[in-house]
Amino acid sequence: MATGHWKDAEPRPMTMDDARGVTRRLLLSPGDGWDGWVMRAFELEPGGQTPRHVHAWPHINVGLEGEGVVTIGGEEHELRHGSNAFVPAGTVHQFRNLGSDTFAFICIVPEEGDPRFE
Amino acid sequence: MATGHWKDAEPRPMTMDDARGVTRRLLLSPGDGWDGWVMRAFELEPGGQTPRHVHAWPHINVGLEGEGVVTIGGEEHELRHGSNAFVPAGTVHQFRNLGSDTFAFICIVPEEGDPRFE
Repeated sequence: MATGHWKDAEPRPMTMDDARGVTRRLLLSPGDGWDGWVMRAFELEPGGQTPRHVHAWPHINVGLEGEGVVTIGGEEHELRHGSNAFVPAGTVHQFRNLGSDTFAFICIVPEEGDPRFE
Repeated sequence: MATGHWKDAEPRPMTMDDARGVTRRLLLSPGDGWDGWVMRAFELEPGGQTPRHVHAWPHINVGLEGEGVVTIGGEEHELRHGSNAFVPAGTVHQFRNLGSDTFAFICIVPEEGDPRFE
């Protein structure tokens, strides 16, 4: 799905430990021609959150809808439609939905950072 | 501006030949830590368009607001809030605002594809 709309991509539950109410959708990958990178859309239910974790690759984020925050190394940053955020490699981070609607955002990672889409 | 909102980034006119009513804003660059890549927000006035052109690097796009199209190798793709598009390297392409409001979108390129922000 190199070209389309994130809501038309197939949602898959995120099964990572400590993920709550999180689905992800594959939008663009090396298979589409973006060598080395993967663009996904994440959707967090009200009350949903990703694990508070750290890894060796960065995240590039763009807010799509809803009201959420990303905590980056102890600092909270609002993430909503049109916001952008950068999570540097090796920095503890977590995404949380603070609103009463779905919170959704783009998350770009190097391909080594994307769990395989089965 | 690694973390913020695209509307808070400084708008700069795009002076490329055949660009009409186009401004771009720098959101994220290698200087912020994203090695090799630059994320910009483009804004096209009603009637605005980017040049119809081709180059050796890809574009990764996410629609922000308004109603536009990107022509990729002769095919038109709608680009609006939440749409994504991939323009492969070496493919003729053009962005056009088809609406009566501003059309804005994210455009990610390798750093060699980003005109210097003076």
